[in-house]
Amino acid sequence: MKTLIQNVEIITMDAQNPYYPEGVILFSGDTIEYVGCLSELEANLGKLCMDEVKVVDGKGMLALPGFINAHTHIAMTAFRGYADNLPLSEWLSEKIWPMEDRLKPGDSYWLSLLGAAEMISAGVTAFSDMYMFTPDIAQAVSDCGMRAVLSRGLTGPDENTEMKFKEVEELAQWQSRTKGRIRMMMGPHSVYTCSPEFLQTCRQWAERYRVGIHIHLSETAREVADCMRQYDKTPVRHLFDLGFFDLPVVAAHCVHLTHDDMDLMARYHVKAVHCPSSNMKLASGFAPVDEMLERGITVSLGTDGAASNNNLSILKEMSLAALIAKGYTGDARAVPAQTALEMATISGAKALLMSDEIGSLKAGKKADIQLIDISSPHYYPKEDPVVHLVYSGYSGDINTVIINGRVVMQDRELVTIDLDRVCREVDRIVKRIRL
Amino acid sequence: MKTLIQNVEIITMDAQNPYYPEGVILFSGDTIEYVGCLSELEANLGKLCMDEVKVVDGKGMLALPGFINAHTHIAMTAFRGYADNLPLSEWLSEKIWPMEDRLKPGDSYWLSLLGAAEMISAGVTAFSDMYMFTPDIAQAVSDCGMRAVLSRGLTGPDENTEMKFKEVEELAQWQSRTKGRIRMMMGPHSVYTCSPEFLQTCRQWAERYRVGIHIHLSETAREVADCMRQYDKTPVRHLFDLGFFDLPVVAAHCVHLTHDDMDLMARYHVKAVHCPSSNMKLASGFAPVDEMLERGITVSLGTDGAASNNNLSILKEMSLAALIAKGYTGDARAVPAQTALEMATISGAKALLMSDEIGSLKAGKKADIQLIDISSPHYYPKEDPVVHLVYSGYSGDINTVIINGRVVMQDRELVTIDLDRVCREVDRIVKRIRL
Repeated sequence: MKTLIQNVEIITMDAQNPYYPEGVILFSGDTIEYVGCLSELEANLGKLCMDEVKVVDGKGMLALPGFINAHTHIAMTAFRGYADNLPLSEWLSEKIWPMEDRLKPGDSYWLSLLGAAEMISAGVTAFSDMYMFTPDIAQAVSDCGMRAVLSRGLTGPDENTEMKFKEVEELAQWQSRTKGRIRMMMGPHSVYTCSPEFLQTCRQWAERYRVGIHIHLSETAREVADCMRQYDKTPVRHLFDLGFFDLPVVAAHCVHLTHDDMDLMARYHVKAVHCPSSNMKLASGFAPVDEMLERGITVSLGTDGAASNNNLSILKEMSLAALIAKGYTGDARAVPAQTALEMATISGAKALLMSDEIGSLKAGKKADIQLIDISSPHYYPKEDPVVHLVYSGYSGDINTVIINGRVVMQDRELVTIDLDRVCREVDRIVKRIRL
Repeated sequence: MKTLIQNVEIITMDAQNPYYPEGVILFSGDTIEYVGCLSELEANLGKLCMDEVKVVDGKGMLALPGFINAHTHIAMTAFRGYADNLPLSEWLSEKIWPMEDRLKPGDSYWLSLLGAAEMISAGVTAFSDMYMFTPDIAQAVSDCGMRAVLSRGLTGPDENTEMKFKEVEELAQWQSRTKGRIRMMMGPHSVYTCSPEFLQTCRQWAERYRVGIHIHLSETAREVADCMRQYDKTPVRHLFDLGFFDLPVVAAHCVHLTHDDMDLMARYHVKAVHCPSSNMKLASGFAPVDEMLERGITVSLGTDGAASNNNLSILKEMSLAALIAKGYTGDARAVPAQTALEMATISGAKALLMSDEIGSLKAGKKADIQLIDISSPHYYPKEDPVVHLVYSGYSGDINTVIINGRVVMQDRELVTIDLDRVCREVDRIVKRIRL
């Protein structure tokens, strides 16, 4: 069965054919077959046999590739709104880690479904995650139909090292089990929670599994200062010296970077994930996004966990990325709307190491599509839809979400998740673990 | 006829009784009669005769006073998304002012209704405006049921000075015509567009009409530098020396302030309006909100015009105010959620010089109420609702809006504005005036 979305305004994020004021998207199974004008579709494919096509009217909607959340901790929805107004180190050691110790296997299944429900509602179709309890998370992703790259967060060495790497082995099996909808990266947490030898082990595993590495990098001034004191080099240089940059590295946060750090990242194609809400909320600072982009570094967007954001909307991060860069640099031309939208889509796909498959609407790519209702007053007068979306759009405008060719939200109703059940389970879990 | 909202979670913003997990709000005509628990209501007022009461079920909703937008230019919806990525001075002189010259009487009626539709959809019940074409704006406000303080933006002297002050005289009549729903302030635009003598004239008119003064103040580094060069003092000191601070002054932006400026503002109760989106988008900078608050200065929130924001959501500005302050100061305790919510409500009421009448839910105050749907995933798990609203909330969550006792949005449907008509008229106007 094919699906044809018609009468829809399309922003493809494909540099060749970026925009159709009124077009069609045809997909079959999990794959896009055509994006463009109806007349050309008919010229290319011949008249469609409409008995075999489900038609969706996209009138008044804007079609876009799904947003991509390139750094999150999906099960941390448990801690949303808890322990507010604390800087990163205190917040982690005194509040979050003690509560995480109370989580049991199974809990993260429900917590992840809550995060997935929220992301789908906000037009996010794929995400890159780092957390514990990866079997629960993988099961939730598998059930709800999202696309994800999962990393087992690794700190050490400690008494649980063996168990953690066992979970990595288990995680690797989900790729075939979900026909590639779930993938894996290695997830050494950071330079301040992993010894150099432990980081080396993680690097070797990434090499063995032929996967990328997802790591927190230069998030706070303190992380950099501690690393300088301990190793006499910045966290970026430290990872470089450990041979990390021979493999694909996705570095979350990148707030405190030297020029040398950025030059290294650019030369070795280290991909940065900008997390503006989290960096502000935890008072970590403003990342030098404009300077990274100038050097050609791929900068994507992440929400970080709901504990430090506190929501999981890439649309919000996109708007923030565009606004903050201007305030921070004093240059109104920094991070224009189009760049911000690239960060939220095609650059996110690069950060998931999947830019051949997702991140733009193009024949041959996966059918990860969002339809945004642009009939609300904040989309008038009609203007460049990218500018409207980035500066005026709200997450609640997202009407329909399709992942891997499957409708997961229609008219703002979630199709694959029983939200009432999820909320009840989450409230029950949270009641148990709260300090 | 009375209206009773029941089974509703209430954040009153009234320091005496800030929160009811499940309560009722009773209002009659334009005025709130009771906020609290149903049992106490019955004890206080006796059993209500339910034939005379319209009952609204607030289950799953959070009731709050309406948001207050303390600085906007409502008819600038015409320029939303136009002339992006330019700094303030270029943007004004090369793009906005030439297009404004093409606006005709009547245009701003439709442009204002678009802005009103957007504000109502985002839970804004009252706003303070500075623009031209005030007869059109006042008519639109009168028709759609919003509450507003309007200022005729004044620059000069020039050949139109007489005409502008004539519009001020006309504007003054709307207060009685709308039974106080529309009020007036004097609106000298700024120290860089008004001569000292012209500012004096505006001050005298404010004194004569017994109204406050709404002015742009210390928005850009350039404004401050030019003022220093011309008058050898900061814009704040300049206004002080002109006797402005003997009257109520509401100062929009306040980005570039000295300690002396802030001390003066605190001593003379000058009210600041923080406009974070606009200040970032035009690369003006980050206002020292935390320092102003520490000095006891009332800091409210403004969207500025849709041309430089680009939307009119105080919920978004509230979230930004809380986040940016932490990133800017490096202190995760700066502008906590509760403070941000005060800025969006009761401090906004102070900036409209109406804190006796609006800004909190309390018997005797005007019935300006919003009901927010908190059943979406980003409001789970249940936690402090203020924290959830400020950091996780989206403008699309606002379900029902009541202004002056009149329902103006119900289940996200606008009641007093024909949005289709407004959008058509706006597109027509914009087509004509675009350069």
